[in-house]
Amino acid sequence: MPDPAYPTPEAAEAAFYAAFEARSLDAMMAVWGRDDSIACIHPLAAPLNGHAAVAAGWHSMFLAAGQFRVQVEVAHEMREADQVIRIVREYLIIGQETEPRPPILATNVYRKETGGWRMMLHHASPLQVGGTPPARTPPVVLH
Amino acid sequence: MPDPAYPTPEAAEAAFYAAFEARSLDAMMAVWGRDDSIACIHPLAAPLNGHAAVAAGWHSMFLAAGQFRVQVEVAHEMREADQVIRIVREYLIIGQETEPRPPILATNVYRKETGGWRMMLHHASPLQVGGTPPARTPPVVLH
Repeated sequence: MPDPAYPTPEAAEAAFYAAFEARSLDAMMAVWGRDDSIACIHPLAAPLNGHAAVAAGWHSMFLAAGQFRVQVEVAHEMREADQVIRIVREYLIIGQETEPRPPILATNVYRKETGGWRMMLHHASPLQVGGTPPARTPPVVLH
Repeated sequence: MPDPAYPTPEAAEAAFYAAFEARSLDAMMAVWGRDDSIACIHPLAAPLNGHAAVAAGWHSMFLAAGQFRVQVEVAHEMREADQVIRIVREYLIIGQETEPRPPILATNVYRKETGGWRMMLHHASPLQVGGTPPARTPPVVLH
């Protein structure tokens, strides 16, 4: 596959989610930055660092996954000249289901490299829908 | 409180976790960048954007929390001249307990501003210990 050029962070993000939905490892890895400091965190999983580990993580996920579609909604964005961070909600619709599963929250970091924008970091985590943010520590128990 | 200057991302990170442990809202908010594009994601919770929302989130958390200590372990780092991203494991030890709770994974983004390094983004999420990374979609069911 020729090395694709993504003219904007949005183009890189569209390619990322298209590769995710297509479960295509080649298309997925084409979106990632050339620097080996890239990092990917799948929901609840340990961080994967560098191309080999990031590719192995997607390979396992694609092997395990059935067909699905993903809808992406941008929650927040931080733009700099050479870097954009986008916090998005991912809604997965599995197989023949008609309603999306509870959303996954992802922080996506894109950086401008020679040849275009590429993904540097993807941190995905479950989002508890409809609940209040859980405390990180149990409430104080008064005796 | 005078505006503190953090000479390194590590100093900003140390101040962040000291404020977290001390449950001090003033100390916590001093660590955050002056730009209102800051974002904070507590485990399982929706993203909070801007100073008012980020401060309200920490205020709620500190009100609900009892005493705890936190140990921080760096898993990965991406360094640029004006920005550092650190992926860390947070181990919370609650009250009089002697063993830490299962770790929280956090992506911390620090940026160099006039006056020093400050936090721009904190995305914290549960880390499933000892398990294999969960698939994002159920396995294909063969009929």
